[in-house]
Amino acid sequence: MTSPIAIQDRYPDQYAHCYGCGRNNPHGLHLKSFVEGEEVVCRHTPPPGYTGGGPDFLYGGLIASLLDCHSAAAASAAVMPDDGIPPRFVTASLKVDYLKPTPVGVTLELFAKAIEVKERKVIVASRLVAKGEICATGQAVMVRYPAKK
Amino acid sequence: MTSPIAIQDRYPDQYAHCYGCGRNNPHGLHLKSFVEGEEVVCRHTPPPGYTGGGPDFLYGGLIASLLDCHSAAAASAAVMPDDGIPPRFVTASLKVDYLKPTPVGVTLELFAKAIEVKERKVIVASRLVAKGEICATGQAVMVRYPAKK
Repeated sequence: MTSPIAIQDRYPDQYAHCYGCGRNNPHGLHLKSFVEGEEVVCRHTPPPGYTGGGPDFLYGGLIASLLDCHSAAAASAAVMPDDGIPPRFVTASLKVDYLKPTPVGVTLELFAKAIEVKERKVIVASRLVAKGEICATGQAVMVRYPAKK
Repeated sequence: MTSPIAIQDRYPDQYAHCYGCGRNNPHGLHLKSFVEGEEVVCRHTPPPGYTGGGPDFLYGGLIASLLDCHSAAAASAAVMPDDGIPPRFVTASLKVDYLKPTPVGVTLELFAKAIEVKERKVIVASRLVAKGEICATGQAVMVRYPAKK
């Protein structure tokens, strides 16, 4: 299923303040993730300034941030109810493997997929692709928020 | 040993562009890490706007970013040569466990320590403390950059 509405734009207003992907955060990056076939996909060109130690490569902290937000969206997508208002997930743990330097100034493609879905917890595998090459991979444990009463 | 010069301010100029901690990045956070006894310590109050899904808690991506930069500094500190110009490390992998929500608007304390030191690779354990409580822990594999010829 491909949806024209970003997963993050379906989050309830009170949970839409995220620096990375919240529509209610005027300072943030406003990442938008969409279901495309079997995966969740986000395309994003980071703003200038997010460089790593050298000026030609992307900041590793931003890479973790992008995979984090995108993985939360993939967790929401994995349990999307019929009303289209997804449960919000928060990160319990995130592991990022940096496989090769990520260039700056290019559009990045983020892919993510839930690989295990339980009632409260979803495990998401993700990858970041630049110029057709996988530069980083992520694995996140996402937990439904707020906890059910 | 306690040093009055931040580890990041000892990085060679060409590796000091990091968004998180580079003195040559005008857009960045300018994290400063110092050797204090057996650990490396950084105190930082994140700018407003770095909120998570809800407005009262810190963005998980920023937490990963802080632990990433600080762990790179701890790796440099672990192999600091006598001339005080540290080798620069890049992140091969980073795992963050988010133990509890981190509040916004407070000064955070970051602690890190090298737990394994090899010629090219240093493994660093870290933690983020807010209001006296550990809110997140990290483990990073840091690799010396550039690779020796």
